[in-house]
Amino acid sequence: MSTAEGPSDDDGGGTPQPLTIAQLAELAQVSIATVSKVVNGRAQVGAGTRALIEGLIREHGYRPRRRRAAAAPLVELAFHAMDGEYLTEIAKGVERVAREHRLAVVLSQPPHPGTAGEGWIEGVLGRRPTGVIAVFSSLTEAQRDQLATRRIPLVLLDPEDDPSPRVPSVGANNWNGGLMATRHLLGLGHRRIAAIAGPDRALPSRARLDGYRSALDLAGVPADPALIGRGDFLVAGGLAEAERLLRLPDPPTAIFTCNDGQAAGVYRAAYRLGLRIPDELSVVGFDDLPVVRWMNPPLTTVRQPLTDMAATATELLLGLARGELPARHRIELGTELIVRESTAPVPG
Amino acid sequence: MSTAEGPSDDDGGGTPQPLTIAQLAELAQVSIATVSKVVNGRAQVGAGTRALIEGLIREHGYRPRRRRAAAAPLVELAFHAMDGEYLTEIAKGVERVAREHRLAVVLSQPPHPGTAGEGWIEGVLGRRPTGVIAVFSSLTEAQRDQLATRRIPLVLLDPEDDPSPRVPSVGANNWNGGLMATRHLLGLGHRRIAAIAGPDRALPSRARLDGYRSALDLAGVPADPALIGRGDFLVAGGLAEAERLLRLPDPPTAIFTCNDGQAAGVYRAAYRLGLRIPDELSVVGFDDLPVVRWMNPPLTTVRQPLTDMAATATELLLGLARGELPARHRIELGTELIVRESTAPVPG
Repeated sequence: MSTAEGPSDDDGGGTPQPLTIAQLAELAQVSIATVSKVVNGRAQVGAGTRALIEGLIREHGYRPRRRRAAAAPLVELAFHAMDGEYLTEIAKGVERVAREHRLAVVLSQPPHPGTAGEGWIEGVLGRRPTGVIAVFSSLTEAQRDQLATRRIPLVLLDPEDDPSPRVPSVGANNWNGGLMATRHLLGLGHRRIAAIAGPDRALPSRARLDGYRSALDLAGVPADPALIGRGDFLVAGGLAEAERLLRLPDPPTAIFTCNDGQAAGVYRAAYRLGLRIPDELSVVGFDDLPVVRWMNPPLTTVRQPLTDMAATATELLLGLARGELPARHRIELGTELIVRESTAPVPG
Repeated sequence: MSTAEGPSDDDGGGTPQPLTIAQLAELAQVSIATVSKVVNGRAQVGAGTRALIEGLIREHGYRPRRRRAAAAPLVELAFHAMDGEYLTEIAKGVERVAREHRLAVVLSQPPHPGTAGEGWIEGVLGRRPTGVIAVFSSLTEAQRDQLATRRIPLVLLDPEDDPSPRVPSVGANNWNGGLMATRHLLGLGHRRIAAIAGPDRALPSRARLDGYRSALDLAGVPADPALIGRGDFLVAGGLAEAERLLRLPDPPTAIFTCNDGQAAGVYRAAYRLGLRIPDELSVVGFDDLPVVRWMNPPLTTVRQPLTDMAATATELLLGLARGELPARHRIELGTELIVRESTAPVPG
């Protein structure tokens, strides 16, 4: 069994062996039962004692009595925000692969970074899943350590940041998606092309925006900073920024949004302002959630294959659980431009 | 610990005790290990032997060695179809209550009735969850028996049928929702009001349709059978029926649909035919999924509180797991008409 961040696996020879529960108990001057509770994520241990023991485990490593405690036939799917079709598309892919391997999928919600722990990681350690797939969030360093020291493998799916090259992750080719979306609009003759960004900290949407910038640059179209809207992946944010952009003295004739939800906000802004899509405004989204083919008109968007990404992450996770070393630590699936009816040649 | 269909709980005195694993093994003339595998949902038992032992358990009952085998801290959320926001809204409610009780949520997909079992129920029995919430489907009688004999409680959420008054279930006041939606349209002066039904076999949408019929009847408006469209809860079906209805010689001025997805199909039909909502066509949906406030125009719909229904079902389930008898076996939460911008007075 191998994990990506097992502290004792990557070091050279001569390093001390990880400690047993008994040795940890002696070092911490607590009972074996107390160490066992911390290791197995049970609740009845004070915060100070827990922190002390976790620190020792991080420092020295931890050696289970048997080579590996039996993992439960569960895959943990950790999701910060339970909203919309993005979750469903991912759950489908995880469930498909898990079922083939006779594993069940546990859906859980880690606390947002900075909020109180609420026992999420203790719950995971207590369940001893075969592995954890964390969506969007990379978890905290402490949480990753706690999984690694229990030899519970972790795979990140569509991570918003890039915490460590040693944590395997699956994403999509975001940069290329932004490039394709913008080239499609340029090909239709648009020159005033706006973009609505995702959250500042999210690398996937930054890559999409950089693809947009490169497409403009390659076409010799100067990027106008006034045409880049801030966003948060929410419909309301897309609406607010679209209204601002469309009221500029020299408004855009096309808008590329960093997710489909924001594109729905642009549709709403166009509807309010009486602008017809695509005759008076072209729109390209990003994600290709099932719902967008039912927008009026159906949305042209960049497809990221969320269900396949989730299936790939699950296969990778199960390989780690079997002790395989991943062939690569970062897998990016291709994005694809799906042209529907929200884009048309530039008016006039 | 009590379950709704525990075969030995409801009978009077004098009935034979349920059998132990050893007694079942003797009756079936198989080893104790084989009976144990069937009881605990493990895979390595032939279909014939499994059916024989399940039959004996159904007939005589089964008595675990201890009064109750330890349940895992899991709530099983069983979903036939992993699609769209309906799933997300329900998962949120289950997760909220489960987390308060330090339980994790397992998301699994039982096979459609009539298809091969694929080991779903064996997986559930092997996991020994604290309880099972089945959404939309009532499971098969055999599956319900298998849960009951293992004393794994079951609660149905928004069941499409009504299999047994002894299986607790949580739903919404569907009939009243249909009544309110139609009265709203009648109040705006509409008389040619169409409805698009759900699947024939689904009782919730039948109740919505009956509410529609009663509202018309109470208003003295004769129901025109040509104005009732068939449906399947899918957008494409709503589109097809709406196109048929809107091309009638005397078309409706308003359409009530039995879910929000079908309302999206009506929007698509109106868009294709160049009809403006609500000026030329009023539309009322059912569900109030988060996405519908972003439709153009925002959809007037009947809200069924899916997240609250799911939380209520989970509370009920955990009560059963603690051995409480449910105060009632059928809980219906109220529906509410949410008026947005898709309905207007009848034109002309």
